[in-house]
Parts: sequence; structure tokens; C-alpha cells
Amino acid sequence: MSKRLFSFIGGSIGSWRVISTHALVGEQLPIVDRFDIVDGADAAAVPGTRWHLRGTTSNARYVARTEQDELNARQPPLARVEAAYGAFIPVRKTAAWWVLAQDQRRRIFEESSHHVRVGLGYLPKIARRLHHCRDLASAEPFDFLTWFEFAPADTGAFDEMLATLRATEEWEYVDREIDIRAVLDAGSA
Amino acid sequence: MSKRLFSFIGGSIGSWRVISTHALVGEQLPIVDRFDIVDGADAAAVPGTRWHLRGTTSNARYVARTEQDELNARQPPLARVEAAYGAFIPVRKTAAWWVLAQDQRRRIFEESSHHVRVGLGYLPKIARRLHHCRDLASAEPFDFLTWFEFAPADTGAFDEMLATLRATEEWEYVDREIDIRAVLDAGSA
Repeated sequence: MSKRLFSFIGGSIGSWRVISTHALVGEQLPIVDRFDIVDGADAAAVPGTRWHLRGTTSNARYVARTEQDELNARQPPLARVEAAYGAFIPVRKTAAWWVLAQDQRRRIFEESSHHVRVGLGYLPKIARRLHHCRDLASAEPFDFLTWFEFAPADTGAFDEMLATLRATEEWEYVDREIDIRAVLDAGSA
Repeated sequence: MSKRLFSFIGGSIGSWRVISTHALVGEQLPIVDRFDIVDGADAAAVPGTRWHLRGTTSNARYVARTEQDELNARQPPLARVEAAYGAFIPVRKTAAWWVLAQDQRRRIFEESSHHVRVGLGYLPKIARRLHHCRDLASAEPFDFLTWFEFAPADTGAFDEMLATLRATEEWEYVDREIDIRAVLDAGSA
């Protein structure tokens, strides 16, 4: 099994207690009380599982060297003690996006939508890990699973970042997006 | 299961009869008499299978719009009647390649190595389908599976194309490459 593969498993158990589940575009996911994030895809069947989404971390697809160096210098790790809030945001892009050539997708992603530049403005407050689902062997309901962690006091900044990104040209190519907010609650999981 | 997923299954049966198996760099694959190319990953176990490699077609990662338009206009389909020869070339790239940023990989791929421009010079003689393995859920031995079909009379042109590509900066990042040549022999498969 790939070491870069992660599963997000939603149901009645898990370290993350769900606060809200908002479908911004496209079909909603079943509402769950809790979810877990585990290594690998083949987690043992857990009673009460309502959704099980998989994705793999991969090489960056649009980021230039100078941008990557800035990201590397400023992005925080996951699992910081103060980062008790999580946001799990699965996203699917349209067929129209995927038939664009690389230079067209890059132009929309950064020169038009400033995806990296916007994100950099919220570092090191917001930790992020991106998972790709599109090239898994299984047919997956999303193209990306994005995972964010931040301190409760940075919720406003996080919401501002999302609002900025969702108003961009890039987001015209998003046809399914669910925003699941959660609080770390491992003790009673 | 993803509709873009294909399996290459080598052993004692299959529509493609192997002529030669050449390890250019890295570990050789077991030598087989024949192989088949099938939709999906979960082909029933076939007696005598020596290797089973999977990959998914995906969006292009480096090709610009103008290049893609030229490719679309000139690239032939698979399964042409005259294209009785096949070449199955699984390739793995180094960790050093995968940590490069997108602009660095693009520069090496095209501005330095002219991967698209070289390939265009051999169209419409050579048909090609590229499969990605790196982001499958399973740990795969190669990053790409490339598949080519051409008429026997175009073997010299195909070899010339490969020699040109293998001399480029891009190929300095290849750490495993096997070149399996085959002839279509479906009747006696």
C-alpha cells in the first residue's frame, strides 16, 4: 500500500467531533458525529461508518520553485497543540477543468486566482495537507481532500481565506465542495 | 473502479507476443512469452502471470495548450490495423525529480529535453497511451507505463525517437526503465 495514502472515515467514532457540515456546491455528504484520519485505505470496517474517503499526498502540480520555497519556510506542521480546530473540505473539479492544458490551469490557479499567494497570507496560522483522489484505482467521489488545522482564535482568518479563494476564477471549476468543521476531541473518542 | 485504469499482465497468455525485454536501467522484470492489456485493475488471476502492472490515464501534467492542440491534431488512435508492433515501457523517476517544483519539471521536460517536440516529429506514425501509477492506492514499482503501437516498417523511427529522448536531461531522472517489444498475435493467444 502506498505510504502517502490516507483515509477520512466519518461515522459515530473518531478523534474529530463534527461541528458543522456545509455543502457549498453539489451533493451533500451524510452528516456524521465524528471522523478519524488514518494511514492507508483499507481500514477495518468500523460500525456506523457513513463515509470513507481516500486520497494520496503527491507532488505539487502548479507551484513554482520560488513559491514552494516560501511555502516550505512558512507552513506549519499538522498536530500543533494549539490547533484544536480542523476543517475537512473535499472538492471535485469539472470535466472542463481537467481537459485544460497545464499552462491554462496554472494561469487560472495562480496568475488569475492567486491560490498560493492567498494561502501564504495565512501562514503560519493554518496547517494544510492536500490529498489527491483522481488517480486512485477506485472511482472516487472527489478529486481532492483538503485538510486544515488551526487554533480556534484563527477561525475568522480561515473563513476569510476560504471566502477569498471561493470568489476566484479557479472556483468556477469546482462542482462539488463540502466544508466539514470539527474540534479535536480525542479523549472521548 | 476508475474507467481510466488499465492493467498490463505478463505471463504465458495474451494477445501480444514478446520479442524482447531489455532493462535499460534498474531491475529487470521477469521475462514472459506474452502479455495482455485489460481494462481495470482486478483482472481475475491468470495462471502463469509473472507481472501485473497497473496505471491510469490522467490529465496532461506539462503540455501547454498550443502543444496539446498539435498533439490532438496529429496523434493516431490505438489499434490501427497496420500497427502490429507494440512497445511497453514502464518507467520510474527518481525522488529528486518528484521534489522539483512544477516550473522546474516543465523546464526539464520541454525547454531542455523537448519531450513534446521530439514526439511530434514521429506523429502520426507512433500511437501512444500514457498511464500514471504513482498516485494509485497500491505501492507500484513504476511511476509510468507507456504503451506504443506502430507498423513494423516504423521500428527504426521509433528506436530513433527513444534514443533521442533517452539522451535528454529528463532521462537523467529515470532510475528504472524496461523496454518490452511485442507483436500482435491475437489469433493464437
